[in-house]
Amino acid sequence: MFRINENYIKLPGSYLFSTIGKKVSVYSTAHPDKKIIRLGIGDVTLPLVPAVTEALHGAVDEMGNAETFRGYAPDLGYEFLRKAIADNDYRARGCDIDADEIFISDGAKCDTGNIQEIFSLDNRVAVCDPVYPVYVDSNVMAGRTGTYDSERETWSDVIYMPCTAENRFAPELPGESRTPDLIYLCFPNNPTGATITRAQLQEWVDYAQKKGAVILYDAAYEAYISEEDVPHSIYECEGAKSCAIEFRSFSKNAGFTGVRLGFTVIPKELKCGDVSLHALWARRHGTKYNGAPYIVQRAGEAVYSEAGKAQLKEQVAYYMKNAKYIFNGLKEAGYTVSGGVNSPYIWLKTPKGMSSWEFFDCLLEQVNVVGTPGSGFGPSGEGYFRLTAFGSYENTVEAVDRIRTLQF
Amino acid sequence: MFRINENYIKLPGSYLFSTIGKKVSVYSTAHPDKKIIRLGIGDVTLPLVPAVTEALHGAVDEMGNAETFRGYAPDLGYEFLRKAIADNDYRARGCDIDADEIFISDGAKCDTGNIQEIFSLDNRVAVCDPVYPVYVDSNVMAGRTGTYDSERETWSDVIYMPCTAENRFAPELPGESRTPDLIYLCFPNNPTGATITRAQLQEWVDYAQKKGAVILYDAAYEAYISEEDVPHSIYECEGAKSCAIEFRSFSKNAGFTGVRLGFTVIPKELKCGDVSLHALWARRHGTKYNGAPYIVQRAGEAVYSEAGKAQLKEQVAYYMKNAKYIFNGLKEAGYTVSGGVNSPYIWLKTPKGMSSWEFFDCLLEQVNVVGTPGSGFGPSGEGYFRLTAFGSYENTVEAVDRIRTLQF
Repeated sequence: MFRINENYIKLPGSYLFSTIGKKVSVYSTAHPDKKIIRLGIGDVTLPLVPAVTEALHGAVDEMGNAETFRGYAPDLGYEFLRKAIADNDYRARGCDIDADEIFISDGAKCDTGNIQEIFSLDNRVAVCDPVYPVYVDSNVMAGRTGTYDSERETWSDVIYMPCTAENRFAPELPGESRTPDLIYLCFPNNPTGATITRAQLQEWVDYAQKKGAVILYDAAYEAYISEEDVPHSIYECEGAKSCAIEFRSFSKNAGFTGVRLGFTVIPKELKCGDVSLHALWARRHGTKYNGAPYIVQRAGEAVYSEAGKAQLKEQVAYYMKNAKYIFNGLKEAGYTVSGGVNSPYIWLKTPKGMSSWEFFDCLLEQVNVVGTPGSGFGPSGEGYFRLTAFGSYENTVEAVDRIRTLQF
Repeated sequence: MFRINENYIKLPGSYLFSTIGKKVSVYSTAHPDKKIIRLGIGDVTLPLVPAVTEALHGAVDEMGNAETFRGYAPDLGYEFLRKAIADNDYRARGCDIDADEIFISDGAKCDTGNIQEIFSLDNRVAVCDPVYPVYVDSNVMAGRTGTYDSERETWSDVIYMPCTAENRFAPELPGESRTPDLIYLCFPNNPTGATITRAQLQEWVDYAQKKGAVILYDAAYEAYISEEDVPHSIYECEGAKSCAIEFRSFSKNAGFTGVRLGFTVIPKELKCGDVSLHALWARRHGTKYNGAPYIVQRAGEAVYSEAGKAQLKEQVAYYMKNAKYIFNGLKEAGYTVSGGVNSPYIWLKTPKGMSSWEFFDCLLEQVNVVGTPGSGFGPSGEGYFRLTAFGSYENTVEAVDRIRTLQF
């Protein structure tokens, strides 16, 4: 008789965004006349830019022509895209990353979820708290996290690194008693919108080097960085090539949430003994993945064209104008606000000690604005709330103005 | 200090298609004047049909327009595509499969590779021999296969079901001493091109029901079925909905090898105790996957349009004309040939007791034709050879005519 992977059953049933969806649905059914503004989920709203749609149309025409049709893609992705990435995202920033250290994929969610597979099951995982749920849940499914404490909402074998106002939302190095093997870091951070400086990230690289740990660095939001001393890539730090894997996405810098494209960088010198992690990930790619669509890889290439860069700079600026409006508007109204400067996420402290969900209900019911309760991202998110800058400017302005009418 | 997943190291280094690639490269470098014809890898060569490219262009335009832009897709895939599949692939054949039992993905390779994750690590796996390597390798990576016998090229904990001329390439039910929990079946088969009848498949369903096993049924080649009593779906069999998962692909019926689209069917009544496998796979999808691109899902929808069906019928007929030419041509030349009737693969016995690789070298060097050595798919493939019908008709004819010049 077959049996299931029991680790799946250990996962708590709290689907953050599905709970939000249900609450919104109940409210809007009861109040069909109300205009609800959604600044909750991190999905983009602006259409693909012309440089990208032109590349897509061109690639579709190629696929419809016998002379230029393409079947299976190369395992790591097409050279034209890997080279554009190496040149623009790495070499242009002084990072010595080769095109063949880049693995093209259908997104950072898949890659950050799957990467744990190439590591031993008894490796100890460290995550920021609050955290993007995929890092933890994918390790739960693999059986790497121990038992769940439903009271504290934490796993016994996971090292949580609280990120709160007290430490300016920057994780602290784990104490001597708990040494992690795999350290998930995400900067600019989802959900807090916080960043750390190059010097701070260097401390993490030095720590990983010393402890023999691997940093799994999610840089999906790097396009939103506006400050000079905030690193765009972990490979800007000395020594990172032998202790860090980096994940990138086209979802937020180019609006590809529905197009699906991302990549993972594994430098060849990142090894466990004489086994390179690059070879393991290549084996996984070759066995369980079949490449991103050719047309989508051409769209990715267009992101790096002169026209693409100019058009997408405007798109990021549009969202950052929203971020600024939310940040300033709520700050003026007396809220304690962070994020939003190098990130499309604004992280605010709920007023008057309200819980995250209390504030969620309050916003939904009183001003018809949907955000994300910070506690959904982990226990240290309690008392915080996330708003995203990915809406339209008009809706963003209206949402902030509505929130400002609330009296606490 | 971090450690790797040691199971990856157990994988034998024999990359079948990379070995083939190297041999071909060495030969063509030494003989730059020779025209090599490749009937090896199962990649298609005809361009996308007009119904599909029109749908792609239309969807690209939607993505470039603020009013019609789409971000993240629904977890299971868009309703329009799941409904088209349920109606055309299932209800039209009398199979009672609902749209919400269908999970859209980027291909059957990913799904057949990932599905093992939702099962217990101590489940016993049964595979046909020869076999599509992904089924075995993905279980090796998970640690489900025991130790490797490099002499016999088999894993200690895997049940191999030999498929040879003696049993007309149809696997036999495992004996009482070895009961599998997970049974991988692929019909029409890759690599042998063999099929089994509906009555034979019903025996497997009955067996799985009796033993409490799950059948993982790969029907990626169903579009090539030409005979009446060969099932297109395992759900044509009584009772399959409570013991079988089915995998489908758009790669071979619509030429999507470089477009990437597939789906997996998990009926809601397929359960282990009170846990439905549908819920587990939904959780995996939600955690580690972010949906197939919107534009690609629209392309998939077009496959089921009247124009799409008509155009793709011609495309399949084109490849099947190749299959017939290979089959008949080699048969007339005295080869023992099978497959090719309900499948784009022709499976032939090597002449004069040559090994699969000896015959490979002979074809490459003497007539400049590339095929796939049967032994690359498992020990019972030794002495066999696979040719595919996915080339152009002109090349296929030339390759067969060249092979016919060989004297053994």
